[in-house]
Amino acid sequence: MTVAVEFIVNQLKQVLLEEQVSTNETVRQLHGKDESHHALSLPDIVVFPRSTADVSAILKIAHVERVPVVPFGVGSSLEGNAIPIAHGISIDFSEMNAILEIRPDDLLVKVQPGVTRSQLNKELKKHGLQFTVDPGADATLGGMAATNASGTTAVRYGVMRDQVRDLEVVLSDGSVIHTGNLAAKSSSGYHLNGLFVGSEGTLGCFTELTLQVYGIPEFVTAGRAIFGTVADAVSAVTALLQAGIAIGRVELVDEDSIQQANIYNETAFAEKPTLFLEFHGNEAGMQEDIAFTEAIFEDFNCLSVEFEQDNAARNKLWEARHSLAYAYIHAYPGKKLMSTDVCVPISKLAETISYAREQLDIAELAGGIVGHVGDGNFHALLMLNPNDPQEQAKADHFNEQIVQYALLRGGTCTGEHGVGIGKMKYQSTEHGAALAAMKSIKTALDPYNIMNPGKIFT
Amino acid sequence: MTVAVEFIVNQLKQVLLEEQVSTNETVRQLHGKDESHHALSLPDIVVFPRSTADVSAILKIAHVERVPVVPFGVGSSLEGNAIPIAHGISIDFSEMNAILEIRPDDLLVKVQPGVTRSQLNKELKKHGLQFTVDPGADATLGGMAATNASGTTAVRYGVMRDQVRDLEVVLSDGSVIHTGNLAAKSSSGYHLNGLFVGSEGTLGCFTELTLQVYGIPEFVTAGRAIFGTVADAVSAVTALLQAGIAIGRVELVDEDSIQQANIYNETAFAEKPTLFLEFHGNEAGMQEDIAFTEAIFEDFNCLSVEFEQDNAARNKLWEARHSLAYAYIHAYPGKKLMSTDVCVPISKLAETISYAREQLDIAELAGGIVGHVGDGNFHALLMLNPNDPQEQAKADHFNEQIVQYALLRGGTCTGEHGVGIGKMKYQSTEHGAALAAMKSIKTALDPYNIMNPGKIFT
Repeated sequence: MTVAVEFIVNQLKQVLLEEQVSTNETVRQLHGKDESHHALSLPDIVVFPRSTADVSAILKIAHVERVPVVPFGVGSSLEGNAIPIAHGISIDFSEMNAILEIRPDDLLVKVQPGVTRSQLNKELKKHGLQFTVDPGADATLGGMAATNASGTTAVRYGVMRDQVRDLEVVLSDGSVIHTGNLAAKSSSGYHLNGLFVGSEGTLGCFTELTLQVYGIPEFVTAGRAIFGTVADAVSAVTALLQAGIAIGRVELVDEDSIQQANIYNETAFAEKPTLFLEFHGNEAGMQEDIAFTEAIFEDFNCLSVEFEQDNAARNKLWEARHSLAYAYIHAYPGKKLMSTDVCVPISKLAETISYAREQLDIAELAGGIVGHVGDGNFHALLMLNPNDPQEQAKADHFNEQIVQYALLRGGTCTGEHGVGIGKMKYQSTEHGAALAAMKSIKTALDPYNIMNPGKIFT
Repeated sequence: MTVAVEFIVNQLKQVLLEEQVSTNETVRQLHGKDESHHALSLPDIVVFPRSTADVSAILKIAHVERVPVVPFGVGSSLEGNAIPIAHGISIDFSEMNAILEIRPDDLLVKVQPGVTRSQLNKELKKHGLQFTVDPGADATLGGMAATNASGTTAVRYGVMRDQVRDLEVVLSDGSVIHTGNLAAKSSSGYHLNGLFVGSEGTLGCFTELTLQVYGIPEFVTAGRAIFGTVADAVSAVTALLQAGIAIGRVELVDEDSIQQANIYNETAFAEKPTLFLEFHGNEAGMQEDIAFTEAIFEDFNCLSVEFEQDNAARNKLWEARHSLAYAYIHAYPGKKLMSTDVCVPISKLAETISYAREQLDIAELAGGIVGHVGDGNFHALLMLNPNDPQEQAKADHFNEQIVQYALLRGGTCTGEHGVGIGKMKYQSTEHGAALAAMKSIKTALDPYNIMNPGKIFT
């Protein structure tokens, strides 16, 4: 421990308990990475706050001493978002994991940032309620708000930003603000909720979140639709959305990915481009939507559609979809996952996915394509040897090709994973002159650049 | 015309045509007020830009010369939002009223800010599409984005902010930025879309808007449900929302307001607290939703429910709802309309409306209550004699009581009209320490405070 680090540790121990401050090598290792291929970088110190007051006290010290601070949930981010590249303090929110209030009448819940998605849903189920945002990983809600996470259900219920009514945020100087209120809508003052969601820890630390929840739908039906080509599958979804069918989920899984899923889950799904679907609603309306969907799919050469209302079969289906990243990781021991994340206007999705598949084949990279196709968002999942710089360079080039292709069509370099480290180089092309406006907001709220420095902006 | 004004006019005429710059008294009068009770305040100059380049040129001059600038749509705002209280330049967007692009495949439209809601919907109808935000007035889309307008359909489709994919904005120094992209979701950089929507011209001028549109639903049914008390009507709506019924619109109109509507529209609606309803969807699902709604309403002592699928009857019903403000204005010649606009968590709506009705009666103010009750938002519509300071003081006191009542229950002082002049005094109570964060963003983006100065913040 250097003298400088010891100086900060001593100050932190004035405001926190001994056990809340760690410089242990193993603990620091755990906070130096996420689930991505991005390089390890250790924090000097890891702290475990138990209250908003703790977080405020930590930031006051960091502010005065100009020490970098990075909030940390469970480390499930995919672009190095939580990696402390400038070292300093990693704030681990695992001890702030209380569900503070459930208001069934208002369809609202108030939680601490360390609560995970599955923890919340387990509790909500007792009230017939659900939290809808589902990025696959069992991320913390604080982390999901920080990256504006979404996933399979965004096509129906919206993304993380759409669920946030209020955040309690500790700013870089330790002051505490609320970004919203409990009403369903407001035109009062600037929309800080929206600004802080997706700011990836660069503007402040979330210490409480008030989130919208939904009743568990009366009827849910899941199904699989198999197509001859990815292009047909995507075009079918586009037609479905244009017809205004209120689909609950619609996920594309390509041939390669179905293969991996079959191996990993010991399933026997047909190894063809497949849409995993879910419908929610009242029984009569849902049946009509399903019939209409089947008719539309027929127009796009759908080979077969199968629905299952049975809970176990439905869970197995979504298990297969959700475990895909792990299936790839399992199939390529020693390799690390890299995922692209562009999102394009829905009319450009089919051509963008075709382009991605072509470039993947040309580059001879192993991987598959899966996507939240109802939103125009897809991922190419690549498995890379971290010790092979040539493979890494090929993957970087591929990622860049996809991003440029998407940006030229009015899309974005990241639909849901956030900028982190991996998408910084595209910010200027994507945002142009707006990037200067973003930076001026960052400077206004964090003048000493201590909040997750080196992320989003250079 | 003072020398100072002449100096600016001469500069403006260097970059605009003669006919685009006016100091005519009548023109200035038209730009010195909106539809509210707030006092007239004239701009020194009114300009009529025809392009983004025009707006940029105007702002470059204003920036150098430190001249206040206020964007102006059709002046339908209700809190003095577009009144140039610091004088300077009113930028009238009526000549930037082109629908630039309709992308039916992407359910997107790109418009200039001076396009009105009805103009857009007329054009969209040819494609089977609709723009859903419906604040009653035929406002411009630029104005609706500036105040984050909503109205009768927000309960189903969301508010103005939810529809905005991208804005072209001219900042205070004349630079031009884009706040978003065309993809359905993004986690790239800060959410400038959300920040600029609702900023009421204090951060920049919108010159293009890319907005989400929807297919016109297959089936629409409208209806009226009559209740014995306002409390029963509101509780019935709360139960409906908790049950997850996807209602298209649900509006409360109280006894006094039904009376005014009957007089103004020559209708004969029962003069009882009434819910105006609309359901959208596929036929089977809608029938099931309607049956379920009737069952719920019975539990809340509903006196009668009548549905009409006939287009003419449906239009008549919504005409009655939308013309309510005008009905009041017509009934009280010489008086000016003042509307409260709080929004509260839905569980607190019944008691907040009861409280408002009581205080209205105690204050002996003429007026009625109408509300977008699905959102927890309602308006007390008051008719005031502008020459009676005592009546004005009573109304101000009443407004303050309602706002404080709402804020104590987690609500907001304005659900959809914006802050303008009228809600500035509540900003500190509502936002607390967050107000300083908002001000720092304002200063970062508009360092000389030329953009609609004296609004939102003191």
